[in-house]
Amino acid sequence: MGAINKKGRQTFIFADPPCIISWASIVGPKEGEGPWSDDFDQILPDYLWGEASWEKTESKMLREAAKLALSKQGLQTSDIELMVAGDLLNQITSSNYAAREIAVPFLGLYGACSTMAESLLVAAAMVDGGYCERVLAATSSHHYSAERQYRAPVEQGVQRVPSSQWTATAAGAVILQKGGSGPRLSCATVGKVIDMGQTDAANMGAAMAPAAVDTIKAHFQETGRPHDYYDLVVTGDLAAVGLSVARELFVRVGLVPSPNFSDCGVLLYDGLQDVDSGGSGCGCSACMLTGPFLRKVAGGEMRNILLVSTGALMSPTTTFQKESIPAIAHAVAIENI
Amino acid sequence: MGAINKKGRQTFIFADPPCIISWASIVGPKEGEGPWSDDFDQILPDYLWGEASWEKTESKMLREAAKLALSKQGLQTSDIELMVAGDLLNQITSSNYAAREIAVPFLGLYGACSTMAESLLVAAAMVDGGYCERVLAATSSHHYSAERQYRAPVEQGVQRVPSSQWTATAAGAVILQKGGSGPRLSCATVGKVIDMGQTDAANMGAAMAPAAVDTIKAHFQETGRPHDYYDLVVTGDLAAVGLSVARELFVRVGLVPSPNFSDCGVLLYDGLQDVDSGGSGCGCSACMLTGPFLRKVAGGEMRNILLVSTGALMSPTTTFQKESIPAIAHAVAIENI
Repeated sequence: MGAINKKGRQTFIFADPPCIISWASIVGPKEGEGPWSDDFDQILPDYLWGEASWEKTESKMLREAAKLALSKQGLQTSDIELMVAGDLLNQITSSNYAAREIAVPFLGLYGACSTMAESLLVAAAMVDGGYCERVLAATSSHHYSAERQYRAPVEQGVQRVPSSQWTATAAGAVILQKGGSGPRLSCATVGKVIDMGQTDAANMGAAMAPAAVDTIKAHFQETGRPHDYYDLVVTGDLAAVGLSVARELFVRVGLVPSPNFSDCGVLLYDGLQDVDSGGSGCGCSACMLTGPFLRKVAGGEMRNILLVSTGALMSPTTTFQKESIPAIAHAVAIENI
Repeated sequence: MGAINKKGRQTFIFADPPCIISWASIVGPKEGEGPWSDDFDQILPDYLWGEASWEKTESKMLREAAKLALSKQGLQTSDIELMVAGDLLNQITSSNYAAREIAVPFLGLYGACSTMAESLLVAAAMVDGGYCERVLAATSSHHYSAERQYRAPVEQGVQRVPSSQWTATAAGAVILQKGGSGPRLSCATVGKVIDMGQTDAANMGAAMAPAAVDTIKAHFQETGRPHDYYDLVVTGDLAAVGLSVARELFVRVGLVPSPNFSDCGVLLYDGLQDVDSGGSGCGCSACMLTGPFLRKVAGGEMRNILLVSTGALMSPTTTFQKESIPAIAHAVAIENI
């Protein structure tokens, strides 16, 4: 059972931290050209992977990442009691169609690019709370399905701006279990929706940075952990522009979150992939977690990380209606304990 | 702490069932003309409620229903530790923008019209699991925001078919608390995604009926409760066509779920509102729960109900791509104990 979350507190402390017993990542060609090619389980040869549409490909990526995470431990879909997943597509269809094939009890989430952390924290609460023994948390994004839904047909060749982010083609899946071996999910901080009035949908990093800082600040205040507790504090996908905004905000609130503070949108690619400000999409923090980060924590190269996946919660409709961009960030602490 | 959910089981049994200490409903003009006008807290005079778009109205309905549920118990938004919500709009913007104003830790869900039950079961697990003392679960739908997103501009006057359902303009909010007085949420059955190959988006009831039957069957099998345990077993929004399919499927699986088995989509309107097969939308089961049902359970008119909110998980994009319609149903047992 979790410690009672005191009134006004955002952090869930898991009394018996669930084990991350397995994980898997599947990424697109561009992500496979970046610095982490050896860390991903599978790099797709093209953007369709034998499917008739990008949407079908994205759903297949999520489904296959989940099955791969299971198979690494010799598990079947029938060995999990709950699947918690979401994605960027309208009505989270990538997750819904994957859940149809996986055919276990399913909770659909929507947290935009914060979904990897959101799904992990819900999954961890279901395990630690005593409702499930083993839960799958997963998410995905696909560059081309996202572009045509959120922006413009890619064939149109709309000019990108320097603050633009590149939606990653990537899926990540994590299996959490009561007991076992592997890194543990020790606590999680649930984010609030923060909106500082930013209206430029081509600069989501700046819209999300205040949410990331708010959640990280709450996490350190509520856990009482020193600023150098984590070997890595890493935001979801602020990318270069958003990361610089976050660094400035940290100075203002008097917090240095870690000597090693970075962002998945900055780390996913190197300078050769022409992604403007950096990566984004649910798959961005998902594949960095299920690629390099979990390998490093499990292998002892890092003791622990705080993954702070960030999401911009607008839609094309609300942008047309001149609304500003609300954002959220959820944090999960993953430790080799 | 919840009893351990045995492998392969879908039902969470809450050891200390959370109390439903407050609830509120806000509905549109058409819903206010139906048989339950005295049960709703607020009936809107028109579909805009002073806002500039239907989307903004829907978000306001969700936000105001939440605030009304809080104010009935003299609570402020700062008295809740978590908000769990979702809706039908792309990127669940009604919920996101409401969460921005309510400004507490937020988990966004997507379960289409199953969201009322999904949000209640997640909220109940967070309270019973020991992570929160008081949680808000809420959802909404708006006929005109849904029509233009899912179907066609209403100005176009597209002909409806007899199996069409009318998306309810309605929002419901429920406050769950550890201890206190009020009906309790004793257990919940998490649904699986079920797809029987139905492809007609104008007949969602038939697509959802197998999911409802699957979840209800699992609920009775796993809890061992007799078929007449509940005073009412009520599906979310199968409407008339879907309800008749469900009744047929129950005969095939040899289950009579209750002498009083009905559907929120059938009950919400009477014969005068020209809604074809009946109601649908997240708000349909939400306003029936927070209107008549909770009043009847709290007042002793009914001992208990099993609310089985049902969702069709397709999107216009997947329909264009010739995918069939996956569906899900989540069940929550609400009892006067």
